[in-house]
Amino acid sequence: MANEVILLDFWPSMFGMRTRIALREKGVDFEYREENLRDKSPLLLQMNPVHKKIPVLIHNGKPVCESSIQVQYIDESWSHKNPILPSDPYQRAQARFWVDFIDKKMYEAQRKVWASKGEEQETGKKEFIELLKILESELGDKPYFGGDDFGYVDIGLIGFYTWFPGYEKYGNFSIEAECPKLIAWAKRCMQRESVAKSLPDSEKVTQFIADLRKAFGVE
Amino acid sequence: MANEVILLDFWPSMFGMRTRIALREKGVDFEYREENLRDKSPLLLQMNPVHKKIPVLIHNGKPVCESSIQVQYIDESWSHKNPILPSDPYQRAQARFWVDFIDKKMYEAQRKVWASKGEEQETGKKEFIELLKILESELGDKPYFGGDDFGYVDIGLIGFYTWFPGYEKYGNFSIEAECPKLIAWAKRCMQRESVAKSLPDSEKVTQFIADLRKAFGVE
Repeated sequence: MANEVILLDFWPSMFGMRTRIALREKGVDFEYREENLRDKSPLLLQMNPVHKKIPVLIHNGKPVCESSIQVQYIDESWSHKNPILPSDPYQRAQARFWVDFIDKKMYEAQRKVWASKGEEQETGKKEFIELLKILESELGDKPYFGGDDFGYVDIGLIGFYTWFPGYEKYGNFSIEAECPKLIAWAKRCMQRESVAKSLPDSEKVTQFIADLRKAFGVE
Repeated sequence: MANEVILLDFWPSMFGMRTRIALREKGVDFEYREENLRDKSPLLLQMNPVHKKIPVLIHNGKPVCESSIQVQYIDESWSHKNPILPSDPYQRAQARFWVDFIDKKMYEAQRKVWASKGEEQETGKKEFIELLKILESELGDKPYFGGDDFGYVDIGLIGFYTWFPGYEKYGNFSIEAECPKLIAWAKRCMQRESVAKSLPDSEKVTQFIADLRKAFGVE
């Protein structure tokens, strides 16, 4: 059976970016289909009836939903090259722990940095920097989260990097001053073709944030 | 190296129950240590410094946190018998999707059923029943969520069953009337020794809910 791979996605989504990177790490050709989240396609609603969210990976007509599950699915389905999760069960559990941590904490925290004002924004900024420092401490002096090889946690986190200039602009702080090793890690990741090709230009993301702020009445 | 397995847990936790069941499915001897969540042990704080939550699985001195990750870790570390996740990548992704769905939706919804009053409780009940119906529809006419074999989604969900009588008492509704197939499934699961041994008596859980309602001022 030919591999037909379709990704329903939305360009600034840090979750969609995970799946794009994983597919490119494995050298899988895929058809990227941009969704309009204000007018979702019938295919999106059919393929993800429970959450109705992007990204949705459609492999030979069958949907896989939730980005962290998609990345694991891609790793297991195209296991011939560039392993994404480590092979050791304990290391796998640790990698899953950190992606779960990112899923549970980062999205909410980053949102407060650019979508709120005053005290709520200050609290959000503090929380967000704390999260980044926890992640930086887990990274330590390793080139990547899993050690010498780019892998699951790197894929789980790097999409946020393209949002960083927006957080800095609207939060009025420097992430590099707070977490220099994390920025060095992000620049290292950006040298990979799979990442560079999957992350949009951060100026475009910053403009997207500006538009959202207007739409949400934060300005 | 001998396998020393310790589980830091709290008896009514539906998440802790998952890990107990998985260990028993694999025939792993473990030391169960009850935590006092109002005065957490130094070991818990040391082993799960990020979330400070039970359950924590400690295998030969090394912690694994988050119940769904523990169950996968147990499946991968003791792979000699009773596979928990299916072997096919697509089926694995589907199983992960449903456990993730339970994690994201069930806990919050069930809490509203017994920890709120009036309109909030009515909305919560409606949401909770909707979730159960989605799960029942995914179960369909299969004996277990994955098909003929007890597995990952069954382990992910069954712990809630011991809380059902409490939901029914304080929500004033019958789950069996709403979701008869789901109740038949739960009774099927309860026939397994791993499950029967891992779930506390539901009367004790109902009393625990009554105590929480008093503590939260719901009564």
